[in-house]
Amino acid sequence: MTSPAEVSAATPLLTELYPRIQQFYAGQVRHLDAFRAEEFAATFTEDGVFDHRPGADPLLGRQAIAAAVSGYQRTKHAADPVQRRHWFNMLQVFPQDDGTVRTEYYALVLHTRPGTPEPQTGPSCFVTDVLEVGEDGGLLTKFRRVRQDHLV
Amino acid sequence: MTSPAEVSAATPLLTELYPRIQQFYAGQVRHLDAFRAEEFAATFTEDGVFDHRPGADPLLGRQAIAAAVSGYQRTKHAADPVQRRHWFNMLQVFPQDDGTVRTEYYALVLHTRPGTPEPQTGPSCFVTDVLEVGEDGGLLTKFRRVRQDHLV
Amino acid sequence: MTSPAEVSAATPLLTELYPRIQQFYAGQVRHLDAFRAEEFAATFTEDGVFDHRPGADPLLGRQAIAAAVSGYQRTKHAADPVQRRHWFNMLQVFPQDDGTVRTEYYALVLHTRPGTPEPQTGPSCFVTDVLEVGEDGGLLTKFRRVRQDHLV
Repeated sequence: MTSPAEVSAATPLLTELYPRIQQFYAGQVRHLDAFRAEEFAATFTEDGVFDHRPGADPLLGRQAIAAAVSGYQRTKHAADPVQRRHWFNMLQVFPQDDGTVRTEYYALVLHTRPGTPEPQTGPSCFVTDVLEVGEDGGLLTKFRRVRQDHLV
Repeated sequence: MTSPAEVSAATPLLTELYPRIQQFYAGQVRHLDAFRAEEFAATFTEDGVFDHRPGADPLLGRQAIAAAVSGYQRTKHAADPVQRRHWFNMLQVFPQDDGTVRTEYYALVLHTRPGTPEPQTGPSCFVTDVLEVGEDGGLLTKFRRVRQDHLV
Repeated sequence: MTSPAEVSAATPLLTELYPRIQQFYAGQVRHLDAFRAEEFAATFTEDGVFDHRPGADPLLGRQAIAAAVSGYQRTKHAADPVQRRHWFNMLQVFPQDDGTVRTEYYALVLHTRPGTPEPQTGPSCFVTDVLEVGEDGGLLTKFRRVRQDHLV
């Protein structure tokens, strides 16, 4: 047994990366939940890949990602205007030798209809990301794969 | 591209503040969910403002905040005794030049009735706080604004 | 008032421990939600105690913990195959003088049935752990007590 203090040097990367990634994700979903399509797409690398649903082609690059968010807003959201909230949790962070960071986490979407306090929940998802650490220290999503629990 | 290690010096404040704020919020909601009115109010500054609901006057100061918690317990909770659990998530932390810290996060309330395993959920909220960092290093909520998604 | 930077030295343990414990829990529930019984049990100390439900005997040691997970999989899960996701939140971390770390947190289980996007939620729980910090710096659960909100 060593005390917690003695082992603190063992994980400087995690200490640093974990809160940064949590903060990055919070900002990313804020854009998504407000349909700021361009701003959301800009949290991906220029050639970022968003494999958002089994059976659908992955979204390739910022332009495709922004178009998908805008399209969702113009169709599904326009027909049924709910406030979506994306919740991520149980985050695992795995720094890679090439400087990227692989993450895995659970995600859940909450949908609140005007006047109805109880949100509709789902789907529950398992998400895998590869994050790129930019020259300015900022994070970008290079790759994201979402697997919805009810479609497995 | 820089490695994660090389950029670690860029965000010492976030590295330090993020877990502290998460721990602070966990303790704060523990008081609220147990109806410890005075202890909950003491997590606000003496003149803290709690703008808890659109259409209602904000609660001004610890005494008003404690009275609101006690009043809720004596009325709504007494009539329908549920175990509430406040969940916060997707936290963003923005240190300010004046030493305060602005935060933004999602919140969801779970209500469990005795004998019923599935909690009622909601409302889903978006919360903005201003936190004060005290002389002892402890955090206090100076201002909180809660916006419920179904009332927007 | 001191600035956040000036107080950052006050909580090195929390800064270090908080993200490590979050990452540890994420890996632990990944094993549980995939029914990797041996791997889940190995996140407890050899003589770990898992007091998982009022009215039932606590599980004593890794073998009993692994057997309980396997038994659940062979009976309840075989009869009704849902994808479970354990969500932990509102974590409090309390380093102890003996080098262990006491934690308290909320937990919620999501159950997704094939083809049904909306998960069933519950129970909502309050959990208390004692974590041991191993010689390799890794964490192990020495003791866990789960209190389900609907059984209180």
